[in-house]
Amino acid sequence: MANSLDDLRYELALASRMLANEGVLDAFGHVSLRHPSDPGRYLLPRSRSPQLIEPSDVLEFTLDSEPVRPAIEKLFAERVIHGCIYEARPDVMAVCHHHAAAVLPFAIAGVPIVPVFHLGAATGEDMPFWDQQDEFGDTNLLVVKPEEGRSLARALGQHPAVLMTHHGATVVGRDVRELVSRSIFMCQNAQFQLQAHMLGKVVPLSSGETRLAGTINAMPNVVGRTWEYWSMRLDLAGRLPPAGARSRKAAKLKLAAPARPPAKSSRRKQKHP
Amino acid sequence: MANSLDDLRYELALASRMLANEGVLDAFGHVSLRHPSDPGRYLLPRSRSPQLIEPSDVLEFTLDSEPVRPAIEKLFAERVIHGCIYEARPDVMAVCHHHAAAVLPFAIAGVPIVPVFHLGAATGEDMPFWDQQDEFGDTNLLVVKPEEGRSLARALGQHPAVLMTHHGATVVGRDVRELVSRSIFMCQNAQFQLQAHMLGKVVPLSSGETRLAGTINAMPNVVGRTWEYWSMRLDLAGRLPPAGARSRKAAKLKLAAPARPPAKSSRRKQKHP
Amino acid sequence: MANSLDDLRYELALASRMLANEGVLDAFGHVSLRHPSDPGRYLLPRSRSPQLIEPSDVLEFTLDSEPVRPAIEKLFAERVIHGCIYEARPDVMAVCHHHAAAVLPFAIAGVPIVPVFHLGAATGEDMPFWDQQDEFGDTNLLVVKPEEGRSLARALGQHPAVLMTHHGATVVGRDVRELVSRSIFMCQNAQFQLQAHMLGKVVPLSSGETRLAGTINAMPNVVGRTWEYWSMRLDLAGRLPPAGARSRKAAKLKLAAPARPPAKSSRRKQKHP
Amino acid sequence: MANSLDDLRYELALASRMLANEGVLDAFGHVSLRHPSDPGRYLLPRSRSPQLIEPSDVLEFTLDSEPVRPAIEKLFAERVIHGCIYEARPDVMAVCHHHAAAVLPFAIAGVPIVPVFHLGAATGEDMPFWDQQDEFGDTNLLVVKPEEGRSLARALGQHPAVLMTHHGATVVGRDVRELVSRSIFMCQNAQFQLQAHMLGKVVPLSSGETRLAGTINAMPNVVGRTWEYWSMRLDLAGRLPPAGARSRKAAKLKLAAPARPPAKSSRRKQKHP
Repeated sequence: MANSLDDLRYELALASRMLANEGVLDAFGHVSLRHPSDPGRYLLPRSRSPQLIEPSDVLEFTLDSEPVRPAIEKLFAERVIHGCIYEARPDVMAVCHHHAAAVLPFAIAGVPIVPVFHLGAATGEDMPFWDQQDEFGDTNLLVVKPEEGRSLARALGQHPAVLMTHHGATVVGRDVRELVSRSIFMCQNAQFQLQAHMLGKVVPLSSGETRLAGTINAMPNVVGRTWEYWSMRLDLAGRLPPAGARSRKAAKLKLAAPARPPAKSSRRKQKHP
Repeated sequence: MANSLDDLRYELALASRMLANEGVLDAFGHVSLRHPSDPGRYLLPRSRSPQLIEPSDVLEFTLDSEPVRPAIEKLFAERVIHGCIYEARPDVMAVCHHHAAAVLPFAIAGVPIVPVFHLGAATGEDMPFWDQQDEFGDTNLLVVKPEEGRSLARALGQHPAVLMTHHGATVVGRDVRELVSRSIFMCQNAQFQLQAHMLGKVVPLSSGETRLAGTINAMPNVVGRTWEYWSMRLDLAGRLPPAGARSRKAAKLKLAAPARPPAKSSRRKQKHP
Repeated sequence: MANSLDDLRYELALASRMLANEGVLDAFGHVSLRHPSDPGRYLLPRSRSPQLIEPSDVLEFTLDSEPVRPAIEKLFAERVIHGCIYEARPDVMAVCHHHAAAVLPFAIAGVPIVPVFHLGAATGEDMPFWDQQDEFGDTNLLVVKPEEGRSLARALGQHPAVLMTHHGATVVGRDVRELVSRSIFMCQNAQFQLQAHMLGKVVPLSSGETRLAGTINAMPNVVGRTWEYWSMRLDLAGRLPPAGARSRKAAKLKLAAPARPPAKSSRRKQKHP
Repeated sequence: MANSLDDLRYELALASRMLANEGVLDAFGHVSLRHPSDPGRYLLPRSRSPQLIEPSDVLEFTLDSEPVRPAIEKLFAERVIHGCIYEARPDVMAVCHHHAAAVLPFAIAGVPIVPVFHLGAATGEDMPFWDQQDEFGDTNLLVVKPEEGRSLARALGQHPAVLMTHHGATVVGRDVRELVSRSIFMCQNAQFQLQAHMLGKVVPLSSGETRLAGTINAMPNVVGRTWEYWSMRLDLAGRLPPAGARSRKAAKLKLAAPARPPAKSSRRKQKHP
């Protein structure tokens, strides 16, 4: 896991590009991380397309979404989404707001996304909807005012994700890797649910299956395996973030799965999906 | 923004390739720009697939769609689409005619495309249909006669786009960047609308949301961000237009988002989606 | 147009790879050309996946689908499809048998493909079905016996294409470029028809529109433009066929659209879609 | 065919990457091979995404799914799927467990996959379902206990594949090439069946057609052709497994189709699809 601010900035650029490469983000959408040592701050890039984010684009914000240092860069108008959620959810360490093609049809038709396969359990048994229209009437649908951000955070409640009517979704995680896998599994689940609907019947997981499968999805060896896989795909696409030799080397080390981990007899009894 | 004719020719080749790379154009379709200093002329490439257009392919036409200089190149038969729209719509500075896969099903089923997400507001609240059959009976469906072009322009009216039955669509913009983002958002909107329809319910934006979100979509910082993103993707695909060292350098500058824009305190209050 | 046998072999390899690159062919399917000087013979590659065909893989066959020269290579079992169609249709100079993903759903559901957009007119107003089961009962669905090939040719009749139940389709053309564009437009048409069906209504072109648009599709400047485009895409995919410097150069020349064609005043009146 | 253990390890890495490249496997899923000389053992990689598997990742297991040599690597939790099937099915030499996007909608809607085109016959006339819930109640849906593996193997019975409710599918083969082509054809069949369903009617092959077409699919020249094609695509994607010069050379030889096979008069009468 990344521990220095430099590593976190690289991790954030990597996660942004990874989510774009997997079809969750496109020209829009943004990812943030809570500051590792100051829970009253978060890290968010300047206004730029996710697949172009560089570690040097990452800025610091207070929970009222004001830049810690006077910023001359263009800033995301919707950064209150991040600030208000970090304010309301002390357990949340990472936030992603997106308009994924797999999720939009549900946000438009008003059909809830339900877990339909084991990995889809990552976003929980039911997913709340938030329609900006309900509380604020006609808007440009961007979440820019603090009261809009707080309203969205209330709708999210203790859930892992919230659907935003006519707009997209916002997903949270306890760390960047859980956030990334959860966001990608949510899109896969939505795609499968749509096609199962076309086949005539959508049978969701039971509450018990959702709880048990959801726990497995968050295990380090699962997120570790997907992290290595999505990093390889990003590398293949020629889109790994730029980094100084030192930190790129560090990054590479973080990406690579150890060919031979230190022997632990305990390891041999471990279960990995 | 490009200001010299050379820059415009590069911009037009870039927009054509970008729209092809994003799936709006394929072997067919064409993009034009109104002449920057002479509103009675427009720029259109010779007959060639959009992703192959080079700045040197761009020719000048009068509004009756005759080449300004005797042309020996093959010309697009459907150029009257452009001439007649520039004639009827003084506010229009850029036109795209396409057969995008996302839009064809609607042009075939006769189902109107309505704005179903914030970016889809770019093409307005309702979109007119034009069926060449109505006025001209059986044709090869190509818009080649001046009266056909004028009929299409009448159907377009003051709208941002018009659906052409069994054929495709024509989109207009106040500049090339608005045209490109509008054309791409229209295809995304159509795809989401089809899938929401499959889920059982298509709920469009309200009139107010469409108006407000449509305004945001046209803001320089939105089209600037998408322009950088789609240019990066075109570059990644190895399809940037050829250009002399000088103008390519200029182009690159136009593509790149400034890492550090000149400080403006006003900037810091700006809102960007 | 290619005129020497060497050029034809390259053209056949190019067409096979192009159709694979555009999603019409995959590991299976095959393209053939009638011998340019001997109408009683045709050219077909040895049994190999289309995107791997090299000019040196192309063999000569008589219309009873026996190799002209003793062949030690593996041969396509279904070559009678080609022989029997060249026998029955003197006007046919090129044949493609494929299992395209866009077409299979129609061959399975027994739903006819009808022209729903101008380019879809390339396969005519109605398309016959051929179900091997009708005449031959249970088979492995491969067309290997002369009587099976003749039965398929009878079903094709004077049409540009025939749907093969549970199997795929066979398309014919008056030359390789018409065959390639017709095969690709047929797949696009099928995809649009399926989606229009999902939107609730499939409105086909009128007979007159189909006849008029079908004529335009076959014009040299249309097939020339698509040929340049699909060749560029194949080149971009790194899959152009291997060729000797001389013939590759020739090929490249064939691919490139002349930047400046010889001036013809007539040209200026020509109409090009 | 590979005969040394080294060759088998390369073959297993190649098959894993090939299935990932063709969309059957993603970050998850795994392929195994029965030990060539000891039917009481099988080869399975350490826990890692299929497209990253290297020959050196391949380990040996006994049929009770314990590693033959003390393993310090992370192991797939679901390896009992492989052990229990090799135990119950002496004829099975290769097993693939996957969550392919094409198959999930059927595993969710509870709709059986039936053969709808000739290549789809590879998975037989009917495909059993296995729902872990039935016998084990709420679980995390992973098949980790021996009794769960044995239950799945019972459901598979003598079939070529079994659908796993809310989870995915498990496919078996008499060798790695049959397994790979069967897994890919099953996904294509599922995709075509879904779209035929959307067109209104799914007509499966007859029992006789399924039996006869299924036999053809397993012929060496069919699996040989697809193996060359999918290997070329994997090579094009830059994902061929790493290998020592010697074994890569061997591998390349295995991949390439002989340009000129040794003349056999028998060959000339052979039929190849």
